[in-house]
Amino acid sequence: MSALKNVKKVVLAYSGGLDTSIILKWLQTEMNAEVVTFTADLGQGDELEPARKKAEMMGIREIYIEDVREEFISDFVFPMFRANAVYEGVYLLGTSIARPLISKRLIEIAEETGADAIAHGATGKGNDQVRFELSAYALNPDIKIIAPWRDWSFKSRTDLIEFAEKYQIPIPKDKRGEAPFSVDANMLHSSSEGKVLEDPWDEPPAYVYQRTISPEEAPDTATEIEIEFSRGDPIALNGETLSPATLFARLNDYGRDNGVGRLDLVENRFVGMKSRGVYETPGGTILLTAHRAIESITLDRGAAHLKDELMPRYAELIYNGFWFSPERSMLQAAIDLSQESVEGKVRLKLYKGNVIVTGRESAKTLYSDQLVTFEDDQGAYDQKDAAGFIKLNALRLRTLASRDR
Amino acid sequence: MSALKNVKKVVLAYSGGLDTSIILKWLQTEMNAEVVTFTADLGQGDELEPARKKAEMMGIREIYIEDVREEFISDFVFPMFRANAVYEGVYLLGTSIARPLISKRLIEIAEETGADAIAHGATGKGNDQVRFELSAYALNPDIKIIAPWRDWSFKSRTDLIEFAEKYQIPIPKDKRGEAPFSVDANMLHSSSEGKVLEDPWDEPPAYVYQRTISPEEAPDTATEIEIEFSRGDPIALNGETLSPATLFARLNDYGRDNGVGRLDLVENRFVGMKSRGVYETPGGTILLTAHRAIESITLDRGAAHLKDELMPRYAELIYNGFWFSPERSMLQAAIDLSQESVEGKVRLKLYKGNVIVTGRESAKTLYSDQLVTFEDDQGAYDQKDAAGFIKLNALRLRTLASRDR
Amino acid sequence: MSALKNVKKVVLAYSGGLDTSIILKWLQTEMNAEVVTFTADLGQGDELEPARKKAEMMGIREIYIEDVREEFISDFVFPMFRANAVYEGVYLLGTSIARPLISKRLIEIAEETGADAIAHGATGKGNDQVRFELSAYALNPDIKIIAPWRDWSFKSRTDLIEFAEKYQIPIPKDKRGEAPFSVDANMLHSSSEGKVLEDPWDEPPAYVYQRTISPEEAPDTATEIEIEFSRGDPIALNGETLSPATLFARLNDYGRDNGVGRLDLVENRFVGMKSRGVYETPGGTILLTAHRAIESITLDRGAAHLKDELMPRYAELIYNGFWFSPERSMLQAAIDLSQESVEGKVRLKLYKGNVIVTGRESAKTLYSDQLVTFEDDQGAYDQKDAAGFIKLNALRLRTLASRDR
Amino acid sequence: MSALKNVKKVVLAYSGGLDTSIILKWLQTEMNAEVVTFTADLGQGDELEPARKKAEMMGIREIYIEDVREEFISDFVFPMFRANAVYEGVYLLGTSIARPLISKRLIEIAEETGADAIAHGATGKGNDQVRFELSAYALNPDIKIIAPWRDWSFKSRTDLIEFAEKYQIPIPKDKRGEAPFSVDANMLHSSSEGKVLEDPWDEPPAYVYQRTISPEEAPDTATEIEIEFSRGDPIALNGETLSPATLFARLNDYGRDNGVGRLDLVENRFVGMKSRGVYETPGGTILLTAHRAIESITLDRGAAHLKDELMPRYAELIYNGFWFSPERSMLQAAIDLSQESVEGKVRLKLYKGNVIVTGRESAKTLYSDQLVTFEDDQGAYDQKDAAGFIKLNALRLRTLASRDR
Repeated sequence: MSALKNVKKVVLAYSGGLDTSIILKWLQTEMNAEVVTFTADLGQGDELEPARKKAEMMGIREIYIEDVREEFISDFVFPMFRANAVYEGVYLLGTSIARPLISKRLIEIAEETGADAIAHGATGKGNDQVRFELSAYALNPDIKIIAPWRDWSFKSRTDLIEFAEKYQIPIPKDKRGEAPFSVDANMLHSSSEGKVLEDPWDEPPAYVYQRTISPEEAPDTATEIEIEFSRGDPIALNGETLSPATLFARLNDYGRDNGVGRLDLVENRFVGMKSRGVYETPGGTILLTAHRAIESITLDRGAAHLKDELMPRYAELIYNGFWFSPERSMLQAAIDLSQESVEGKVRLKLYKGNVIVTGRESAKTLYSDQLVTFEDDQGAYDQKDAAGFIKLNALRLRTLASRDR
Repeated sequence: MSALKNVKKVVLAYSGGLDTSIILKWLQTEMNAEVVTFTADLGQGDELEPARKKAEMMGIREIYIEDVREEFISDFVFPMFRANAVYEGVYLLGTSIARPLISKRLIEIAEETGADAIAHGATGKGNDQVRFELSAYALNPDIKIIAPWRDWSFKSRTDLIEFAEKYQIPIPKDKRGEAPFSVDANMLHSSSEGKVLEDPWDEPPAYVYQRTISPEEAPDTATEIEIEFSRGDPIALNGETLSPATLFARLNDYGRDNGVGRLDLVENRFVGMKSRGVYETPGGTILLTAHRAIESITLDRGAAHLKDELMPRYAELIYNGFWFSPERSMLQAAIDLSQESVEGKVRLKLYKGNVIVTGRESAKTLYSDQLVTFEDDQGAYDQKDAAGFIKLNALRLRTLASRDR
Repeated sequence: MSALKNVKKVVLAYSGGLDTSIILKWLQTEMNAEVVTFTADLGQGDELEPARKKAEMMGIREIYIEDVREEFISDFVFPMFRANAVYEGVYLLGTSIARPLISKRLIEIAEETGADAIAHGATGKGNDQVRFELSAYALNPDIKIIAPWRDWSFKSRTDLIEFAEKYQIPIPKDKRGEAPFSVDANMLHSSSEGKVLEDPWDEPPAYVYQRTISPEEAPDTATEIEIEFSRGDPIALNGETLSPATLFARLNDYGRDNGVGRLDLVENRFVGMKSRGVYETPGGTILLTAHRAIESITLDRGAAHLKDELMPRYAELIYNGFWFSPERSMLQAAIDLSQESVEGKVRLKLYKGNVIVTGRESAKTLYSDQLVTFEDDQGAYDQKDAAGFIKLNALRLRTLASRDR
Repeated sequence: MSALKNVKKVVLAYSGGLDTSIILKWLQTEMNAEVVTFTADLGQGDELEPARKKAEMMGIREIYIEDVREEFISDFVFPMFRANAVYEGVYLLGTSIARPLISKRLIEIAEETGADAIAHGATGKGNDQVRFELSAYALNPDIKIIAPWRDWSFKSRTDLIEFAEKYQIPIPKDKRGEAPFSVDANMLHSSSEGKVLEDPWDEPPAYVYQRTISPEEAPDTATEIEIEFSRGDPIALNGETLSPATLFARLNDYGRDNGVGRLDLVENRFVGMKSRGVYETPGGTILLTAHRAIESITLDRGAAHLKDELMPRYAELIYNGFWFSPERSMLQAAIDLSQESVEGKVRLKLYKGNVIVTGRESAKTLYSDQLVTFEDDQGAYDQKDAAGFIKLNALRLRTLASRDR
């Protein structure tokens, strides 16, 4: 902390909400720092202009408000989906993947504005502090980082509210007490954690869900969609070429309307404890299924199996906050190379929570009647070859069995 | 083939169907071999007594008909599910896991009956020949293996039918022509492949499905079940302790009735080509979700992540036929050790194809309010620790960034 | 620190040297704690009785002095060598593997003596603090751990010396200033680090080497030895069955006398920086070569390659201090299973730093003329099989090449 | 074989020796094929002009004789050494890495000359047939491949000699009987296998060594060399910038003269059996040590550890013949990315078989006094941080220990 005492100017990741408004004021009053705010539209669904007004009200002169949705989807989400990344078998990394982008802009803005520090609103028990800070340090080794939730002396929600009142920060009625659960959201997902969700034996109450209807509420007839891929990324939906964020937003709509992408899990945090969360990833859930389907006909077995073996490590790196690390870049280079011919169309049926592949085709298919026919004719597949194939694969096992008899 | 000319007595994996009846007769007439039949009840859903009668009619004196369902589930299926094994992201290995058990019994029966060979009805283009034969060689390095589909001189279905007629093998009407698709089934799953399924762009016709109703046909209200685990295996369902096969059969019923476990995929065969299949794994799909859920609260992160990294390799070994290999045994030893405290209950909601976790609890939970409270009180989690944790994790990235500036 | 203020009784890993004597006194005077000393003979080559006298002089009533060499070699070193564990391609983990044993005894002694804390003399920049503490916490989650080098207020060597003088702790002449390098030693290795070794472009001065002569000084004629293994561990040397520590001591002698096992490296510490060290592992270097040689004839390829793929992770776990972790135990279970038939003899030539395998034989060999002959006769290896083997392995590559033309 | 009957024109990998001369004649007489010869200088140490004369004598009109040493070192050997590739802990893949280059040229020449087939002289029990053929198929899926050792009807050496005499192929005296061992050589290594080396308990006779003197014969004083790297590859030796093959040839000279690079091993072949070989890799052994040393100061830990984990798979791919596979390319992409800043100098001492690193330095070093000092000053390393780092790393282990008490 002591090094932080000398901070002069700090770029704050500012949502406009109560908590980051308190942080803003605390940075001004307790740290005597000039504050620059950065508010990003990551597709979380909030209006951004109120954040500008609040910042102005608190005397901020340098206010950055940016729509980074296209960058988020094309430079972070899509590369991650090329890897079919899933953490602990189920989690699509919706929160994890947004943090490096925010840190990248915080660092860039710090350089533009001559700030010597950045600040974020993540708590000291979670993963997000790690993700923000590792990303920031990897991009600027000399940056100072303020994490008020770890650094300030408030002991309770009451202390915070008193501080807010003292500085006339507006307090929405429902924010006076502790929230029944906390939410993080961006275009890829929303997560809900805490309080009413703390007992993993209790089913989450319906009101925690933010952006999907339940499978039960979804229509009784299936919706069919068609996604087209190029180099491993979706480029068109139902025949219409779309920008990454536009396409992803439509996938979200399809998912939401069909009850797709709800997940209730207990996960292992990088900081060492288990936590329970409820996640909604409507578009991502569709995309993962579609991507695996287009890979299934265009990706060679060797490449596919190597990808599957590398994936858990890759997902763990993103979860733990190592997006800007040499090892993530190395894995990305391998993954991206594999995607060169991952192109074509996937047809899907969405029905009450299900994402069902009903067809896939590609000019680059490795599965093809024509090829099969060609191979038979040319002797590419002689069933007699299988005997030799098996014999040599068995040789070491037979040697072993002979010894062990 | 020449070595096979001298075969005297052969144990045939005999289903009682037309194809293996032709093989039986071919072994008798063309190979001049005495035949022992082995017919296993793996839960495929066929009557076994007809197989006995047909074998007797063809003059077989040593007829083995066995119900191996409990062994199948407890010694093959459950160990595999401890690993959360999934091949290429989606396939639950339903066919693959049954083959080693059949080979094991074929080899044991060969030893009991003094047979010098075994025979199976798998074709020369598929994976099953590999799985049967690698397993057999690993258990008896000197066994001779006859794979008639690779070895005989029949060129077409017509040739086969003529041979059957010549030897008065009864031919069901619907077997005269080629089947519109071929089926393999056991308690874990059924698979459908070939012909009408060959174009991966075409949705599978409804009639290929064998053991599940569609999500659309499933009830409009969810069914709730509760599975109890001990040492990584399910031991009770809705509070009732059940034998492995009995429990699994009930899971299959629940899955079937709720449209759970259908899968349409293109996979990479070990013999080198891609194939398209439609699989139904109702109980297995439920079990996989439940097992991951109970692991989520009872398995340490280090163990869980190691398991996730080892899984693709483990699944590939089973898919490729290496169940009886040192490397599968090594991985199993690691996996089994991890399961010692994987116990407790999972509550699930089954609804029109969805398997939704709604609760998990365990006496061995690593997630617990009490623990959390203990840690706070005892200083087990000091938010200040996070700062040091991040700093040291960031150190190498900062050093790198300093260099690369 | 504050939680540590209440420590009542602490078990200190005590070498008897100046630094841990200062720590002992600091614990008594500044922490007001009763101190229990634990001094282990790990084969580091120091007399232990002086440690007892010093402890007695400082008023210690509970003094544990133990020869743990057999336990160290049989329960820590040998299991690790079964894995052929090497960190970053070169380091045999000599320091890393001793720490968990020390922590285990510290925790056991704490329980025997009713101590609520343990203390160690590792600094705050190194790996050993992590290894000591992770091991201790894994064995007793409630233990308090005092790491004086991190916790006290001394700023310099001068401060330490003053404190020692104040409490009449004897100060060897050569310990008044900072040492030209620091040493850690146990039966497996000695390491030298710091000061004169800090520039990685400078060759280490000859005087840093503790327990080997240089290759140049070694005899001009080779020494031949023969090591016998059982279940992956060495059990006899030159025909003489020996206890683990006795055998290992002899290997150390052979290595030392032949200039074997010196290593000058730059390694990556778990705490995030690179450090340069000079290590000497005479017996371990011989053992690693011999173990790989006996495995080369007794271990199946599948097991051997799986071991090679798991090894870097296994070595990293030990290096980072996770000996007592579920994932290390899982890997150990896999590795140990592979060693069941790793038995037989290896003949080696030691010559001026070289360890040269000149022969290996085993009753469990998988390489054998007899087997080869058997296989030829029985048609186990038909060269024609190779054609089929290659054809099917090539199939996917040909399909890919056809597509990409 | 039957498909091969129609071969019209075949490119033969032709050494000019007796065996490939017999193959050449056999292709002409028994296969009625026009033959194109390809003789490559891979640094094996043979004169190539005699091969031209023999080919001309046998009526060959299209004779390709090429010096491919630079391509071999820069496009195959160096990329492989970037990975620190070692097969089964010891083998530097000297034979394996040469095969894909030969196949590549065979395929290119086939396309240039309108040949429909290629032929090689590898036997049916070895790995090289696999490597040649997988590479060829990956580059031209329609190529026909003739492997005379698998395909012809000769039963014994006598048959071959008779055939040679019938067609007046000159037979060197020492080639009438079977050789006491067989040799493969290229610039990276020479290998010796078979006959006198078949018993792995017997030390190899001195006369099998081709290109190194023994450590005993090497000079009594050490030789010091300095290798400079750029992007992971050596570019200069003792201050002199050299082409890849020239530099490598000098490393070979240094290795040979100092008894460096001998290896006697038992390895696992891809075709299923164990074999014993004696390999000499003088320059490669030096290069591996030097490359690891320059990486030790320039490669980040995350990148280094990922490389170590991927290496066994990468080495296995090359050993098994999958150089031209998507998965090898993916791994190469990851590895190459890691090498961008692997530059600087390594100083080595060569002494009687030892390769001893005595210094490493780099403008891109991640180890540096200056950095260390900078970090201390800026608070980059606060020893207090270590406490938090350990606490959070320990948290899951403590939770586990609490549960398991």
